[in-house]
Amino acid sequence: MLLAELQNLLNDKIPITKEMGGEIISVDPFQLILKFPLHPNRNHKGTLFGGSLYSGSALACYGLFLWNLRQEGIASDNIVIGEGTIKYLKPVDHNAEIVAHWGTDEARPQFFDSLKRRGKACVEMKAQILVGGNLCAIFIGSFVALNEKKSD
Amino acid sequence: MLLAELQNLLNDKIPITKEMGGEIISVDPFQLILKFPLHPNRNHKGTLFGGSLYSGSALACYGLFLWNLRQEGIASDNIVIGEGTIKYLKPVDHNAEIVAHWGTDEARPQFFDSLKRRGKACVEMKAQILVGGNLCAIFIGSFVALNEKKSD
Repeated sequence: MLLAELQNLLNDKIPITKEMGGEIISVDPFQLILKFPLHPNRNHKGTLFGGSLYSGSALACYGLFLWNLRQEGIASDNIVIGEGTIKYLKPVDHNAEIVAHWGTDEARPQFFDSLKRRGKACVEMKAQILVGGNLCAIFIGSFVALNEKKSD
Repeated sequence: MLLAELQNLLNDKIPITKEMGGEIISVDPFQLILKFPLHPNRNHKGTLFGGSLYSGSALACYGLFLWNLRQEGIASDNIVIGEGTIKYLKPVDHNAEIVAHWGTDEARPQFFDSLKRRGKACVEMKAQILVGGNLCAIFIGSFVALNEKKSD
């Protein structure tokens, strides 16, 4: 799946993300990087609204899932978040980079093994929010994926 | 402070909230209720995007703070979120109500006592996300407020 296809898919599926203006700049099996602009997401302090940082992180994780699912030949996009936490370490006063990744080396193979065998898989995904290489916030989300077409 | 003033202030200070379309329907010293629409915040499953639910919850808490600060005669809007967690219990498949409130009975007086005496206060705020009276998600946010004009 091409970057542009993934970008369009996310913006079509979750229209509010168009207004937030995140742009996927790279994706591979292990991480996705989303360029996330300050201006449309600015808050009362001129920094990046904490709600938008959470939304951008959840979106980056969802994009990483979708891209991986297609790479593994799985057509499902049935993935939901069960719980999410974000810690704000520093104000985000410029455009940010959100780097979504599988929490551990084992998480990705375990996730796909479970999804293919059981039609269901849970995983904890993480995202780092960076400005100029400095870590400004950390997101952790618990996701559940279902593959309804497991019996194909 | 009138409801319409608070609504305009929030939408001006955090422009992305205009796109999300939340509408404050009531506020008193103890809680704020935000009507939060499904359509502009829909996701790939036709339910309310988890990122928007988090944003709406943070916004509702911020609105409750701002209204209370003005009621107490404090001009500051210097409040930031340090950490936020949201648990999704059920899919939100209709317009929702987000009810932001002080976590405990003591939280509000302690918050204002500390803000007035020390110029700084921390508090854990909560929000419930309801559809037709059914609890669908719970938000907890740790906020820090500063009152630069304490010495006035």
